[in-house]
Amino acid sequence: MASFGDRLAAAVESKDSVVCVGLDPRWQSLPKRIIGNVDSADLPAVAAATELYCREIIDSVASLAPVVKPQAAFFELLGPWGMQALYSVIQHARHAGMLVLLDAKRGDIGSTAEGYADAYLGKESPWQCDALTVNPYLGDDSVQPFIDVANDVGAGVIVLVKTSNPGSGFLQDQQVGSVKVYEKMADMVQAQALASCGASGYGNIGAVVGATYPHELSGLRNRMPNAWLLVPGFGAQGGQAEDVAGGFDRRGGGAIVNSSRGIIFAYQKPEYSQSDWQDAVFQAAADMREQLNQTRRSAGTKKI
Amino acid sequence: MASFGDRLAAAVESKDSVVCVGLDPRWQSLPKRIIGNVDSADLPAVAAATELYCREIIDSVASLAPVVKPQAAFFELLGPWGMQALYSVIQHARHAGMLVLLDAKRGDIGSTAEGYADAYLGKESPWQCDALTVNPYLGDDSVQPFIDVANDVGAGVIVLVKTSNPGSGFLQDQQVGSVKVYEKMADMVQAQALASCGASGYGNIGAVVGATYPHELSGLRNRMPNAWLLVPGFGAQGGQAEDVAGGFDRRGGGAIVNSSRGIIFAYQKPEYSQSDWQDAVFQAAADMREQLNQTRRSAGTKKI
Repeated sequence: MASFGDRLAAAVESKDSVVCVGLDPRWQSLPKRIIGNVDSADLPAVAAATELYCREIIDSVASLAPVVKPQAAFFELLGPWGMQALYSVIQHARHAGMLVLLDAKRGDIGSTAEGYADAYLGKESPWQCDALTVNPYLGDDSVQPFIDVANDVGAGVIVLVKTSNPGSGFLQDQQVGSVKVYEKMADMVQAQALASCGASGYGNIGAVVGATYPHELSGLRNRMPNAWLLVPGFGAQGGQAEDVAGGFDRRGGGAIVNSSRGIIFAYQKPEYSQSDWQDAVFQAAADMREQLNQTRRSAGTKKI
Repeated sequence: MASFGDRLAAAVESKDSVVCVGLDPRWQSLPKRIIGNVDSADLPAVAAATELYCREIIDSVASLAPVVKPQAAFFELLGPWGMQALYSVIQHARHAGMLVLLDAKRGDIGSTAEGYADAYLGKESPWQCDALTVNPYLGDDSVQPFIDVANDVGAGVIVLVKTSNPGSGFLQDQQVGSVKVYEKMADMVQAQALASCGASGYGNIGAVVGATYPHELSGLRNRMPNAWLLVPGFGAQGGQAEDVAGGFDRRGGGAIVNSSRGIIFAYQKPEYSQSDWQDAVFQAAADMREQLNQTRRSAGTKKI
């Protein structure tokens, strides 16, 4: 199989889109048609309805977005039934031609890290994700098993570098020697991205860099020229199109931008509320694609 | 419900044991009687056999160990069927009178962190764990939702502070201002442990501190007088009884020591190989309890 770096580049090009649709299926925000008469304490029924909702989201956005990002927490919240739903949703997304980036922020040591890597990315993975988010607190040797498996099968590992929350500075902005913690992590990512770099110019190892810190995003773009960036925080968390401009390289590539609530709950917004809920989701994804394409094209032009 | 700090103290006292049994059910290491004729590619069958094995482990050690620590990775590795097995194993452990500390090292921001906290610890949690390990890379505001839920329901949050792997120093040992990263995390844990401190003298918020760094363990014990320490790395990872001595306070308490492979795969060791596999597991847990009780009693005596 082609490398993840190249597969993502091809998907971005063929859909002409850097939109990543985050699946955060909070039960209380789902459309009335999906909730129906389901009792919120009946977890198997809630999980089945959540699965249906996610499948319909995927059907709505598959032509507009190269990547879907299920947020593991909201499936784990529904117990083993939620995990069954997650499994079906991932399969559905792959059949719909989307790359699946599971946002699970896993991290552990040694053979346990291998277990997580095999679980989500390995050759015999039951979940069959294309990529996984990984937390680097435990150190470089804790990230390596994920990288090894990813490079072996052509999957992706997206390492948390600078996250979008207000408290990310508590640890990530701390100065360690001549660099900040997030820069130290970025240097690790860049080395691994370069080592796995394919024909597209991007490697299998990427980084999470929040849209809510535009200055850091721009610096980290330059620090990791061969890494795909996953940029969360757009929309509901306050990031605007101009805030993510710094995430793109001179080719207008190298980053995908995630929106979760802004797309999947678009039917709650005044500007989309006249539509059927799936139409609202489609339109919100289409609008985001267009907005980001303008941004990355001008970002590309400016830097040449 | 009583606080987690107090519940763990009571369990340690009533079983006269600080043994935490780690459930890392690697398929290829399971006893032949469990594996039987199961095809390793048949995940539903592998998950069912894994569940049986974990239930029998729990039956073997329930009288000897206050805490069981399922390692989420090895259940996730078996797909949604593994998660169903995890669910049943947790229920079985609770019925057997053990506290369940799920080692999942979760971490995320805002409402996603709330999702994880509600999933594993909350009032309506489907999984019903007593405590959860949490990764602090995303910052203090990412740990807070776990702490809030834990304090609300009397559950525990065990924060990664200094892990047992060789590469833990890559980030955790870095100097940030006047302290190291792991000390900064320890100070956050101590403040929260003190704020949730019960009659036992321990709070709901604890810390992971590896047995493989005895010097740091001892320093961190003093830095977090009100926190339960979870000390992994004993046995298979190389930590000995004398290495964990520094983890106990002057009362000989305040720490539980985890062994996974050393107990659950004891039947592979020459000294236990003459026994039935469940007898081997029982004996290994009994020996570890005795060894640690000697250590913590002398540790307690020395410091008074």
